[in-house]
Amino acid sequence: MKQKKTLSIVGLGLIGGCYAKTLRDEFDVIYGIDVDEKALSYAESEGIIDRGFADPKLPLSESDLIVICLYPNLVEKFIGENRDDFKTNAVITDAAGVKGDLLDRVMKKLPLDIDFIGAHPMAGREVQGVWNSSEKIFHGANFIITPHPLNHAENLDLVEKLAYKMGFKRVSRITPEKHDEIISFTSQLTHAIAVALVNSDEKDFDTNVFVGDSYRDLTRIAMINEDLWDKLFMGNKENLIKKIERFEESLDIIKNSLKEGDSESLKEEFRKSTMRRKEIS
Amino acid sequence: MKQKKTLSIVGLGLIGGCYAKTLRDEFDVIYGIDVDEKALSYAESEGIIDRGFADPKLPLSESDLIVICLYPNLVEKFIGENRDDFKTNAVITDAAGVKGDLLDRVMKKLPLDIDFIGAHPMAGREVQGVWNSSEKIFHGANFIITPHPLNHAENLDLVEKLAYKMGFKRVSRITPEKHDEIISFTSQLTHAIAVALVNSDEKDFDTNVFVGDSYRDLTRIAMINEDLWDKLFMGNKENLIKKIERFEESLDIIKNSLKEGDSESLKEEFRKSTMRRKEIS
Repeated sequence: MKQKKTLSIVGLGLIGGCYAKTLRDEFDVIYGIDVDEKALSYAESEGIIDRGFADPKLPLSESDLIVICLYPNLVEKFIGENRDDFKTNAVITDAAGVKGDLLDRVMKKLPLDIDFIGAHPMAGREVQGVWNSSEKIFHGANFIITPHPLNHAENLDLVEKLAYKMGFKRVSRITPEKHDEIISFTSQLTHAIAVALVNSDEKDFDTNVFVGDSYRDLTRIAMINEDLWDKLFMGNKENLIKKIERFEESLDIIKNSLKEGDSESLKEEFRKSTMRRKEIS
Repeated sequence: MKQKKTLSIVGLGLIGGCYAKTLRDEFDVIYGIDVDEKALSYAESEGIIDRGFADPKLPLSESDLIVICLYPNLVEKFIGENRDDFKTNAVITDAAGVKGDLLDRVMKKLPLDIDFIGAHPMAGREVQGVWNSSEKIFHGANFIITPHPLNHAENLDLVEKLAYKMGFKRVSRITPEKHDEIISFTSQLTHAIAVALVNSDEKDFDTNVFVGDSYRDLTRIAMINEDLWDKLFMGNKENLIKKIERFEESLDIIKNSLKEGDSESLKEEFRKSTMRRKEIS
């Protein structure tokens, strides 16, 4: 008889709910751990999890895989507080959008048989809560694994295999340092731009009446979870400051073309962006 | 017996095709005028227009309404070259995304019985050509009319009525000057940002593997028709330069919050953008 496999999701919000829904067929039992009783009872009643817990002790002691979907600064705290309760040979993974030296610090704290695989599902929505979770959110998205020298190869492979099961299209492996540098461009910079664009509105007219899809698309992510994104920005600020400055240089090329009435230089920028954007799917 | 009504679309590209498709039931005859024979024969064979013309003389002489969907700088040229061929009491309208003093100049050139109603359908796609036109593009979008003191009230009402028939959700009327100021923020600035973002990519990794929906959404419009957008940017450059500078100030608030590790100021920006973005539908 096949051994029963148990999964615990720590932090049953939007992303935690997506993990539970997309891993339903891969595990015999799925537990949810959260301080929010309403999230747990909703998830239980909808069959998203089998049972919810406010106290992590019991579910952690039975879980083969633990997915931590907490704010970046709480991942290390959770592991530290519960380090003695993990099952032998448990694999822990996370979903934090910034890694810093989290892996170094966590791997040092853990018993040798417990592995922590850093991961970042590149998916989200401008809404929150397990109520809004859906298999669609992960479907076709990118998934990043940030291996650490102490990770066991089979556990890296397990998380990669599960990512494909969850519907991700591409799984790549890079160092935590490189992850943070890249993500500061593709994710944090885009959010900084959207927020700045909305906030630069002089509000001397009813914006809503004069927008097209371009404004809608560029500003959708300006509806932002302030506590989460404060952690993501501050946890990656050196990289993000550099990317903002480089973006501003790029915008200044356009501004200067305008000031000088230099259509050739402007069109060169348009040709470059068109060619580059065609490569993104 | 009801008088037969004839419409001419000048410039049968993406937007011209959308006008023809959404006004199909409002006119007895729809003509297309374009230098591109392929666009005309495609539109004829698909029933988007009844007949296509390379020479505008005949269709203009029969048309009650003429919609000019040419690049902004070509609208005045077209009207000037064909001013003697318009039917008595014809109404002309356009779709240019920047107005400048176009209305002033054109109204002076036209016979008193011919009216030119400046208009801007706030809709588009990153693809071109009548092949890609669709009723969906106009559906639910904003439509702007820029009245001129010499316009006849019933012609302004006609264009407004037709805009709702075409599927637009909101029709507003503002001066050409105010139009250009507002549009430099909601449309041209967003395109400048998208182009600058894609062009600031340092390309030291495969961007495609590390992007999420935020990067995809913010950069979709970076695939840009370089000739059209050169005209739109240059035709509105004073406004656009101001909006770029104001946006950069707004982005610098975020950058400085990061440099100073000031989470409170950062979260204040997030709260502001969240509240404002919720008002946009």
